[in-house]
Amino acid sequence: MTPAAHLVGDLGEDGLIERILGRLGAAPRDELWAGDDAAVLQPPARDLLFTTDVLVEGVDFSWKWCSGRDIGWKAIAVNASDIAAMGGRPRHALVTLALPPATPVAIVDAVTDGLVESAAGVGAGLAGGDISGASEMLLGVAMLGAAGPDGPVTRRGSRVGDAICVTGHLGGAAGGLVALRRGLVSRDAAPALARLAARHLRPRARVEEGLVVAAAGATSMIDVSDGLLLDLRRLMTAAGHGCVVDPRSVPLDPDVAALEAVLAQTDAVASLALAGGEDFELLFTIEEERVGAARDDLAAVGAQMTRIGVVTARGLRFGDEDMENLEELGWEHLRTP
Amino acid sequence: MTPAAHLVGDLGEDGLIERILGRLGAAPRDELWAGDDAAVLQPPARDLLFTTDVLVEGVDFSWKWCSGRDIGWKAIAVNASDIAAMGGRPRHALVTLALPPATPVAIVDAVTDGLVESAAGVGAGLAGGDISGASEMLLGVAMLGAAGPDGPVTRRGSRVGDAICVTGHLGGAAGGLVALRRGLVSRDAAPALARLAARHLRPRARVEEGLVVAAAGATSMIDVSDGLLLDLRRLMTAAGHGCVVDPRSVPLDPDVAALEAVLAQTDAVASLALAGGEDFELLFTIEEERVGAARDDLAAVGAQMTRIGVVTARGLRFGDEDMENLEELGWEHLRTP
Repeated sequence: MTPAAHLVGDLGEDGLIERILGRLGAAPRDELWAGDDAAVLQPPARDLLFTTDVLVEGVDFSWKWCSGRDIGWKAIAVNASDIAAMGGRPRHALVTLALPPATPVAIVDAVTDGLVESAAGVGAGLAGGDISGASEMLLGVAMLGAAGPDGPVTRRGSRVGDAICVTGHLGGAAGGLVALRRGLVSRDAAPALARLAARHLRPRARVEEGLVVAAAGATSMIDVSDGLLLDLRRLMTAAGHGCVVDPRSVPLDPDVAALEAVLAQTDAVASLALAGGEDFELLFTIEEERVGAARDDLAAVGAQMTRIGVVTARGLRFGDEDMENLEELGWEHLRTP
Repeated sequence: MTPAAHLVGDLGEDGLIERILGRLGAAPRDELWAGDDAAVLQPPARDLLFTTDVLVEGVDFSWKWCSGRDIGWKAIAVNASDIAAMGGRPRHALVTLALPPATPVAIVDAVTDGLVESAAGVGAGLAGGDISGASEMLLGVAMLGAAGPDGPVTRRGSRVGDAICVTGHLGGAAGGLVALRRGLVSRDAAPALARLAARHLRPRARVEEGLVVAAAGATSMIDVSDGLLLDLRRLMTAAGHGCVVDPRSVPLDPDVAALEAVLAQTDAVASLALAGGEDFELLFTIEEERVGAARDDLAAVGAQMTRIGVVTARGLRFGDEDMENLEELGWEHLRTP
């Protein structure tokens, strides 16, 4: 590592690893993190949760409006959200960083800072990772978590008659992406636009909310990562059930009103809440009689929830529409445009 | 999934996932693998081992001589080798697949088959993964393992006076890469060349060997993934020790003799064993008095080992050379050429 090194290709693999490790936290005494062939970790007493999610330049993020710090933050957040959606708590993460040798070292420093900050926020230790060359940046995270005391909340456990609920508000992250893409987010921008941009750039995994909802008796759960319609369908399909959802009850992020003039029509704004991904709110089912208690428990941790529908035996009804007719609205990473 | 689909972009993300899942094994009853936000696994009773390694098209492999099945196989093998180097046993893996939408579905099928075959060989369950678009293929694996009954064997535990040993032979995988690059591997090629190519394309993680060596009392261990010189240096540096290694004792893969005519000089052939990566043999230290027993224990599982040197207080001596003078020989993923 020399002060004159500006590109990762100048540092080389071992030099870059040394630089990154210098920014990570230390392992507890009974664990061994980076620096060996594998990390050595204490196993949890309960079910182990294991997930992985990757962000790819040009597909999942653009340098036009994302900083290295944003990308690092988000890579941890999306994985922690998967652990949260099982009602679990994140414990450890490994990072895969593939990047062009011509990448400025300052970008890797920023990515590392974002990873560190985000991991600290969800209580996960950064236990190591792997680095390789590539023609575009790819940041992958594999995360381990521990299930809560009542075991994991899967996608399969809903029963006919359960209420369908969602935490927080939807559409904010998609609204932020619209604002960023159209260059509406500047220092002088309305505070609502800045808040929307932050929802896209620095999403928060609902870890505490997931623990609370699991303890309150959620029967099934998923995080809203690819849009309410797509993730709702996944949740119902996993259990072999149908649903009736009231579109008017879907909690639209109030800040997206700031986009009404831009998007020209109110329908387009509302569709952000239905099809827009990456809000990372938790969509769950729960016995009707427990809805009130769940709402109170969430309020106690500063969160809110909305009942948007009910689980049925079959058919996916979204107001007057069959959800099959709305299928093109979710986010797909691979569909040829 | 339609029979007419030939490119992954036609299937889309969910279609491709469904297709891949159809080729994977089923989870045991007390676990939940792919299909939820995170996999749910039984924790091991002992230390948990956690590692990740990624293969990138054009950096770690070339379609010129690798099949999809080779890549899938290798992605699991390199991770299992990291678990083996801790004296542990692989248990579960998650896969990250980033690929261009124009990739033929047949390639993904072949990659999946290679993953499945390789995972079965090391006893790991494929518990899920993530898929994204990208401009080149990237195949990442995150693997969980369990340490052996005596705990993990780290890189740090060697003591001055310990013998330095290595399993098997070195240089075969690098020789195979030379043979493949120069187009020497055809149906009519000498059997030695075909064996070398297989060592590069289908490396085997030394899981049983790692368990045996750990039980025999290895004090430190690393897998030879980036070349003997580089990995030996890493092993000694991690413990803060030096070494004296006898170059004539390094066990050169006998098949590389088939390359002598091609490489023109015997020195170049010998250097395959010193600088050539990806043999995935295990390099370890052990008390001098235990060397014989370790050799016998390895022989009992059909493996062999060679004592190549001794741990010293300081200085990295390789025959008459200081290893600092040989530093450019190992494999670096990011160094600008």
